[in-house]
Amino acid sequence: MKLASIVCILIVPATAFAWLAVAESPVAYPEGYRSWTHVKSSTIAPAHKGFETNGGFQHVYANPQAMTGYRTRAFPEGSVIVFDWLEMQQGETSFTEGPRRQIDVMVKDGKRFAATGGWGFQRFMKDSKTELAAAPTPEQCFACHDRLKKDGLVLGSYRP
Amino acid sequence: MKLASIVCILIVPATAFAWLAVAESPVAYPEGYRSWTHVKSSTIAPAHKGFETNGGFQHVYANPQAMTGYRTRAFPEGSVIVFDWLEMQQGETSFTEGPRRQIDVMVKDGKRFAATGGWGFQRFMKDSKTELAAAPTPEQCFACHDRLKKDGLVLGSYRP
Repeated sequence: MKLASIVCILIVPATAFAWLAVAESPVAYPEGYRSWTHVKSSTIAPAHKGFETNGGFQHVYANPQAMTGYRTRAFPEGSVIVFDWLEMQQGETSFTEGPRRQIDVMVKDGKRFAATGGWGFQRFMKDSKTELAAAPTPEQCFACHDRLKKDGLVLGSYRP
Repeated sequence: MKLASIVCILIVPATAFAWLAVAESPVAYPEGYRSWTHVKSSTIAPAHKGFETNGGFQHVYANPQAMTGYRTRAFPEGSVIVFDWLEMQQGETSFTEGPRRQIDVMVKDGKRFAATGGWGFQRFMKDSKTELAAAPTPEQCFACHDRLKKDGLVLGSYRP
């Protein structure tokens, strides 16, 4: 019995660790994305429905591979696109940027993400590099992109 | 007389060309600024005064030298900052970017622009690389930056 207990102690943590690894985001936090190319922006202002929950600025950033994709509409492996959601603050003469709500990340990897059109999706909450959104799940992200797509899962285009 | 006419023909165009060169912007059009680092954004929405003339998005971009400046607040020679003004279009769920109104450019060159705090200023109209704004003049730009300054002529800061 003692030997069995020791074996259990050794096996259980290893199993737990493996489970944690699976639970981690398969999409890595996009380090340095703030210095990537700014693709375009939009805002959800007080005049718009959804302001309470999503009001603010949405900035899109792309790494060099994704910029090739925006030019050719064929996004190469390794393309990463970040959708950066910020709150909005009312200043005297303009709306300014507030705290970060979340970032949504898309990563092109045809093999790893074959089940979702070759793209991995993930939402990281606020400024956290590890806290993931409970919803939308990566599958929900994909389903919506797949429904809205025109010429691919990247819905927007580069604004010169 | 004939010889004098020929001399005039030769001299006048040369003089006109020199005058044009002087009239050109001492601040070069910032080629490639759309791939520089996006510093921050603001918007002037319909709720704000000035919407009619200046409504829309304002995006700030910085070249690598200027990014050093944003980190240290000591902007090295060659720093270039672009203030990109776009119109705003009302979409169903958000405001989206419209045509470009103008870009405002600041260039750090302590010798050439010693009279305006070491910075050259220029506004280029719409998408033109040559059409300059009649107003504000570079001197007017400087006067306002000089009046508003807190720790230098660069009024804003980098949003992480």
